[in-house]
Amino acid sequence: MQNFKYIDGGVTAAQGFTAQGICASIKPSNTTKRDLALICCDTLCNSAAVFTKNLVKSDTIYVTQKHLENGKAQAVIVNSGNANACNADGYAKAEQMCELAASVLSVSVDDVIVASTGVIGQEIPIEPIKKGVQAMKGTLSKDGGTNAAEAIMTTDTVKKEWAVQFELDGKTVTIGGIAKGSGMIHINMGTTLSFVTTDAAISSEMLKAALLDAVEESYNMVSVDGDMSTNDTLAIMASGKAGNKEITEKNDDYNTFVSVLTEAFKSVAKKLAADGEGASKLLICKVDGAKTKKDAKIIAKSIICSSLVKAAMFGADANCGRILCAAGYSGADLDVHKIDVSYKSAKGEILVCKDGLGLAFDEDKAKAILLESEIEILVSLNDGSGSAEAYGCDLTYDYVKINGDYRT
Amino acid sequence: MQNFKYIDGGVTAAQGFTAQGICASIKPSNTTKRDLALICCDTLCNSAAVFTKNLVKSDTIYVTQKHLENGKAQAVIVNSGNANACNADGYAKAEQMCELAASVLSVSVDDVIVASTGVIGQEIPIEPIKKGVQAMKGTLSKDGGTNAAEAIMTTDTVKKEWAVQFELDGKTVTIGGIAKGSGMIHINMGTTLSFVTTDAAISSEMLKAALLDAVEESYNMVSVDGDMSTNDTLAIMASGKAGNKEITEKNDDYNTFVSVLTEAFKSVAKKLAADGEGASKLLICKVDGAKTKKDAKIIAKSIICSSLVKAAMFGADANCGRILCAAGYSGADLDVHKIDVSYKSAKGEILVCKDGLGLAFDEDKAKAILLESEIEILVSLNDGSGSAEAYGCDLTYDYVKINGDYRT
Repeated sequence: MQNFKYIDGGVTAAQGFTAQGICASIKPSNTTKRDLALICCDTLCNSAAVFTKNLVKSDTIYVTQKHLENGKAQAVIVNSGNANACNADGYAKAEQMCELAASVLSVSVDDVIVASTGVIGQEIPIEPIKKGVQAMKGTLSKDGGTNAAEAIMTTDTVKKEWAVQFELDGKTVTIGGIAKGSGMIHINMGTTLSFVTTDAAISSEMLKAALLDAVEESYNMVSVDGDMSTNDTLAIMASGKAGNKEITEKNDDYNTFVSVLTEAFKSVAKKLAADGEGASKLLICKVDGAKTKKDAKIIAKSIICSSLVKAAMFGADANCGRILCAAGYSGADLDVHKIDVSYKSAKGEILVCKDGLGLAFDEDKAKAILLESEIEILVSLNDGSGSAEAYGCDLTYDYVKINGDYRT
Repeated sequence: MQNFKYIDGGVTAAQGFTAQGICASIKPSNTTKRDLALICCDTLCNSAAVFTKNLVKSDTIYVTQKHLENGKAQAVIVNSGNANACNADGYAKAEQMCELAASVLSVSVDDVIVASTGVIGQEIPIEPIKKGVQAMKGTLSKDGGTNAAEAIMTTDTVKKEWAVQFELDGKTVTIGGIAKGSGMIHINMGTTLSFVTTDAAISSEMLKAALLDAVEESYNMVSVDGDMSTNDTLAIMASGKAGNKEITEKNDDYNTFVSVLTEAFKSVAKKLAADGEGASKLLICKVDGAKTKKDAKIIAKSIICSSLVKAAMFGADANCGRILCAAGYSGADLDVHKIDVSYKSAKGEILVCKDGLGLAFDEDKAKAILLESEIEILVSLNDGSGSAEAYGCDLTYDYVKINGDYRT
């Protein structure tokens, strides 16, 4: 694995980037929580993004896709409190948001990325956004990154920002980002709302390739509730200010960049899962010995998505039947009679299934292991060399509570 | 639709069948709930069954498949409290259960259908079954059908038995059955545990064909939690005692039989969904105007399976975004801009989305509609003539409670 270190900071850690986030009261009832953010670079950036694969999309995605056609961007405007999805005037409003940002940041409207998150199917009010953007004029700063991280939160309980540093071509390169969960998150989407900045010099094409490579084992292996959002956007902007030789092909520098990005994204994936709606536990399902990597991924995802597995983990119940069951219906090729299953946490490890057969085990020890807040579900298929990891969380009363009355 | 009427009774309603169910204490802690049942016919029956598609299967399924190779059966032995799945001696134990039943019922061991439901991966104790079967010797009766219905219940809150009568070839034909839910139920499985009996004269081949036709729009359109069981078995036995001309090809009589069976199965599907683990509401998603029937089915299933839709229904929240979202990621071909969504119940109907756009609507009226215990989610795609119905339930605190501590 590539050498890199986590540093303080988030979306403004890399050279050239500033940000801000404020409470614009996009939901009239919200008078305290930050809900509008701007991110800006002092130079035009090579940029790329991936989006939800849901056919029902927020218009912000169509606008951002259009603005990224040339692989360039310089700023981001993003709000929480309203998804601007399934609205008659959604596209016009998303364009308007870009115009407002472009105007106060003195960038071209075509270089603005726009994203929204919140309730679907309700008209987004433009007045509070107009006022909010005006209020942020001249206030974007390095310190404002944290405010931006707060502004994109919805039901998240903790803000998610991160930054890493590593060497590339003898230069110190920084990548940082912010992300928001925490419901309507599912594998096989582009991602959730995440904005990533770097000062690496890298072409738009390579940036897009790196993004696609890195999400495959991170964002695409997280599920909170099996629902794929209408608004998912993961955008990355590269200022080039680190001064490394620009990455324009899949060379060693590219591999280094992708490797660090992947590790950082895996860490974000775990944060998203751990802060899944109502979650009390992070679940990491590690599958090895599968016939192929694809089979391993399918099995890991199926287990992490099973409502029964998720509820059992909430109850600290070392049920092995539900793990085998979820593997069995996953659609992957497997030999039931070779499957071993263990649970592992800071409190130890316990084998609950060997060769596809349930074992008698120490229930007290199993309970102690499963009462921890980070649980590994280890599944060995003993049938090949395919391996994969998927990230999820338990299913709790609070998930039901949060989603049973989300709009009020 | 074929004329038929519901009558009292269940798995013993048809001529030739008797049954019984008792408490055999298969779980030692259970000293009151019936957990072992026998069903028997006084003649050898043409028989067929469908099973879970999970690769991880209870050995009871392999034994039953073997016994049904000749299309004949005469008795059923079934227990709750232990799934006899993922056990080293599972196959031998399942065979032993058939031998015990065959012995007291004086039928051939090869003509016994065996099924189990309960915890996976724990050895099934044969002693209580042996004692239980002995205790039932000579007690099978018409009245015992209800006891059998109780004996197969697990987390079900109500027993499920049904019987219908109709005319075939001038003769009165009866079909009846028992079924159990209520978790680990998912579309695209064979079914849940269900035993159906009829006095119709019909060949094994036509019985199998009828079963496959009838499950397609009933059992295969139910989801409680997205988990597909390891033990699902739906078996049907036909005694031929009604005296109709035996159905040996897909003629008018066959169509009549399938049509009644399908309607009866749809009713069972609704019962299974309404009594899904923790459910407070039955959800029926009706999709019409899809490009194809297949698209309609995919969309209806996707909506019924969405955790966010299910939680919103629990909270009586007329969220239209989650419906559109689930349609959008279903994988079906659809035109987002043509979708209409309404909610309907005994309290009325309300349109919440038109042409893919969220509408402002009367929140009080919507709430009143959604507070009912049976909700229809109506989705019109206005893009063709494909239609389908799927059955599900809301996601509640009790689902989490039941499954967070199932084994204790």
